[in-house]
Amino acid sequence: MSAFDLPAYLTERRGLVDAALERFLPPDDTPPPTVHRAMRYSVMAGGKRLRPILVIAGAEAVGGTPGTVLPAACALELIHTYSLIHDDLPAMDDDDYRRGRLTNHKVFGEAIAILAGDALLTLAFRLVTDTTARVNDARVLRDVVVELADAAGTFGMVGGQVVDIESEGKAITAETLEYIHRHKTAALIRASLRVGALLAGGDAKAVAAIGEAGSDLGLAFQIVDDILDVEGSLEELGKTAGSDARKQKATYPALHGLEASRRQARMLIERVKQRVDVFGARAVPLRALADYVLERKS
Amino acid sequence: MSAFDLPAYLTERRGLVDAALERFLPPDDTPPPTVHRAMRYSVMAGGKRLRPILVIAGAEAVGGTPGTVLPAACALELIHTYSLIHDDLPAMDDDDYRRGRLTNHKVFGEAIAILAGDALLTLAFRLVTDTTARVNDARVLRDVVVELADAAGTFGMVGGQVVDIESEGKAITAETLEYIHRHKTAALIRASLRVGALLAGGDAKAVAAIGEAGSDLGLAFQIVDDILDVEGSLEELGKTAGSDARKQKATYPALHGLEASRRQARMLIERVKQRVDVFGARAVPLRALADYVLERKS
Repeated sequence: MSAFDLPAYLTERRGLVDAALERFLPPDDTPPPTVHRAMRYSVMAGGKRLRPILVIAGAEAVGGTPGTVLPAACALELIHTYSLIHDDLPAMDDDDYRRGRLTNHKVFGEAIAILAGDALLTLAFRLVTDTTARVNDARVLRDVVVELADAAGTFGMVGGQVVDIESEGKAITAETLEYIHRHKTAALIRASLRVGALLAGGDAKAVAAIGEAGSDLGLAFQIVDDILDVEGSLEELGKTAGSDARKQKATYPALHGLEASRRQARMLIERVKQRVDVFGARAVPLRALADYVLERKS
Repeated sequence: MSAFDLPAYLTERRGLVDAALERFLPPDDTPPPTVHRAMRYSVMAGGKRLRPILVIAGAEAVGGTPGTVLPAACALELIHTYSLIHDDLPAMDDDDYRRGRLTNHKVFGEAIAILAGDALLTLAFRLVTDTTARVNDARVLRDVVVELADAAGTFGMVGGQVVDIESEGKAITAETLEYIHRHKTAALIRASLRVGALLAGGDAKAVAAIGEAGSDLGLAFQIVDDILDVEGSLEELGKTAGSDARKQKATYPALHGLEASRRQARMLIERVKQRVDVFGARAVPLRALADYVLERKS
């Protein structure tokens, strides 16, 4: 197998996603301008675009192409961004910085930040239907909306955030920490891969396989995040390192130690790569992405 | 035409909607319980269920039946409830009471209130796809999701709320007030009727006609709301009367006077009834609902 150029792949995919987001988000001066500026401020802050790139990789794994899944890919990024805006609010994690810039509510005020988050979540569901304008299959459209809603709602991301908030400052078990990570972070990463595969016509078996890979990938991603929060610097992370400890958040390293955390992340990434073996050469980008999740420094 | 028994109709429809909401909302003790309790606290607080009843009436106007549109009807109520929870937050309207009970954040705290609102919005989009499980037409499903998203997002309800918040304490024009009312309130009422008609197989002309009726009905609803806020008592409204004036919110009576506001509401309701004349006897409930919107005391 020829060497896969991940940096070039990431750059190209990010370019596709950024251009699509630019197209799908109303311009800054669309009335009422404040909320559209606030939405763009956070979405265009230059994230890694991991979730949209996973939607594309999920489609590619079953033989699809980026073009048909770009609206859905952007929908995943909008849901991710809305969750960051709401999580950063004073009533939640009370964060002042995100991706090296002031958080949304520090710039636009709490009311607009709440509404910008609400609007991004709403727009995400609209975008997803754009995707399937080309699919014309009610079953696929329904499956994709259900996938997104379950991953984002109380059985997924919101559920994880609730338990995370309720656990602050408390001693929690390893099971509770895994619940938080699997729901708050992994659910949306899992959904990214599944949505990509669903839209590209993957069958039930393929969607299930890629979903299990996604759940492990998501958990590994969060464990690495926890490790970086202990080790990283403000410069690399764009947020204050050690913020989890300051907020008395339970993390993998706090509960299991740094070395065991690194080992667990490595084991999960190995399992991700095994799980996507069924897709053969089509999963080359996905395997490279799995390594990237493990080795990233920010 | 035989007399239409509106009170009996409302009671029966509310019963249908309440039973469906009970079915669609996760039980109180579903993990994580706090957020599910918070969702149920506000949804089951006994609202008028106007929007779901309008979804049903919209379906009936084009020959549909309640059964097929109940999930979508509930979706509209969830979106309405999420907007109330977020609007009541300290960063927004800072209200302590709603429907005669403490507001969501007064009971569950701000973090859970924000997340319960997020979760209700998310669940609404999931429910809508349930509806069309019976329709099996990707075009209808797409149209309904787009309808909901546009009515709830920055081109609808959220847009109206943004301008409402930014206008507090300022002298605003009649045009701005109409923008706020048409977006913050009327957009979702319009969408309720259109979604009902869409799901029941209404053609483009029928959906357009009922949508225009819905926009007028929504504006009339908000004008009556403004009038009730001036005139009503805490007992009847379940919230503190005069709260708009205290918050320096522009209202129809403040800008146009009580008598002109009443005249405008009456004119709009007459126009609603004319607009739905094309549906003949099938619009009998809708015409009665229009009168109810005008004459209600709470």
